[in-house]
Amino acid sequence: MNRSIRFYLDYISHNAWIAWTQIHALAGKYQCSVTPVPVLFAGLLQAHGQLGPAEVPPKVRWMLRNTLRKAVQLNIPLNPPASHPFNPLLALRVSSLEMDAATRQQLVDSLFRATWAEGLDVTNPAVVARIAAESGLAGRDVLAEAAEPAAKDRVRKQTDEAIRLGVFGVPTMQVGDELFWGYDDFPYLELYLAGRDPLPRNFETIWSSVRSSAIRRKSPKP
Amino acid sequence: MNRSIRFYLDYISHNAWIAWTQIHALAGKYQCSVTPVPVLFAGLLQAHGQLGPAEVPPKVRWMLRNTLRKAVQLNIPLNPPASHPFNPLLALRVSSLEMDAATRQQLVDSLFRATWAEGLDVTNPAVVARIAAESGLAGRDVLAEAAEPAAKDRVRKQTDEAIRLGVFGVPTMQVGDELFWGYDDFPYLELYLAGRDPLPRNFETIWSSVRSSAIRRKSPKP
Repeated sequence: MNRSIRFYLDYISHNAWIAWTQIHALAGKYQCSVTPVPVLFAGLLQAHGQLGPAEVPPKVRWMLRNTLRKAVQLNIPLNPPASHPFNPLLALRVSSLEMDAATRQQLVDSLFRATWAEGLDVTNPAVVARIAAESGLAGRDVLAEAAEPAAKDRVRKQTDEAIRLGVFGVPTMQVGDELFWGYDDFPYLELYLAGRDPLPRNFETIWSSVRSSAIRRKSPKP
Repeated sequence: MNRSIRFYLDYISHNAWIAWTQIHALAGKYQCSVTPVPVLFAGLLQAHGQLGPAEVPPKVRWMLRNTLRKAVQLNIPLNPPASHPFNPLLALRVSSLEMDAATRQQLVDSLFRATWAEGLDVTNPAVVARIAAESGLAGRDVLAEAAEPAAKDRVRKQTDEAIRLGVFGVPTMQVGDELFWGYDDFPYLELYLAGRDPLPRNFETIWSSVRSSAIRRKSPKP
């Protein structure tokens, strides 16, 4: 394993679920490891003043269709979650507890699958506790651990660090300093991993001189 | 030509330029015509209360990289525009004047190319007038025509109608009632045109029962 792909995720995102099911095969092809980084998507939106897709009704409609098409093409289950949007903090905090990498991968996988394949409610502590026990954390009181200030801080710090790095959505795949966003970006992530990134090397010099000549007047949504 | 693809565009979008260069070959493969529909992207954002990518600095950074990668892969020129964001209304109004379909396709192509390949300023009336004259509108005073209330109304109506249909970004490709968004959606647009849309037929029934269990508190950007 010569490189690591940091995979920023929130269980609230079906696009993150789709990408999660595909990232391991892609990483393996290029001898990379995958490090899941649970972050609060709502925190990313808040930091950048954005709306989430669930907050723009026609975008919700488009996105569900788009993601269902991807799921069918990839032969991945995608079923309605128990509710949506939902509060993912418990699931994010449990996923961020100290544990070995293999256990975390299994836990993240099981929480994603519970949400987007099995229609289970990962805001329900009993559901999360059972999934954790089945994912290699039997014998630990993950609910008590997740309620500790340290566990809450960890998700907050992961989210703040992601914002600092320029992560604005999930899933984001980070390799070195480079950020790829969404399953649609996988072809370019793959080219990057293969050492065939098509991005022109001098593009920043060329584009840095572009200046705005119009500022949109933003008024509150009517 | 048994079907029409309505292609919603604003010259402000380099993603729309990329898609525009590819839509005609795809449409031709499935015996479809392409009808360009100039709309004000800022109007779409305003209607849905969204920020544009240019208003979210880390998204600008990601999107330029992503679009440059696509341009290189597709062997399309993508050069810095004269300014960005810029006010596209003049170019949109001239593109929406009455003219035959072949002239409009040439004009849209030339205005896109001027903006994203040739570094020309399409907010400059003289530039737009010259491009119009070279695109089949020689002999018409397109600047005077575009200043008429009817020309302003036409872009406003196209934008309002797009919003009503659920268009939230550009490029959007409409086939019948189905909306595809962005160049990344082309594989699914193609499957749809080929009669192999993977979208499950009963998905709306299955997903209509999903309800929110958490509402994000939105506060102004700090």
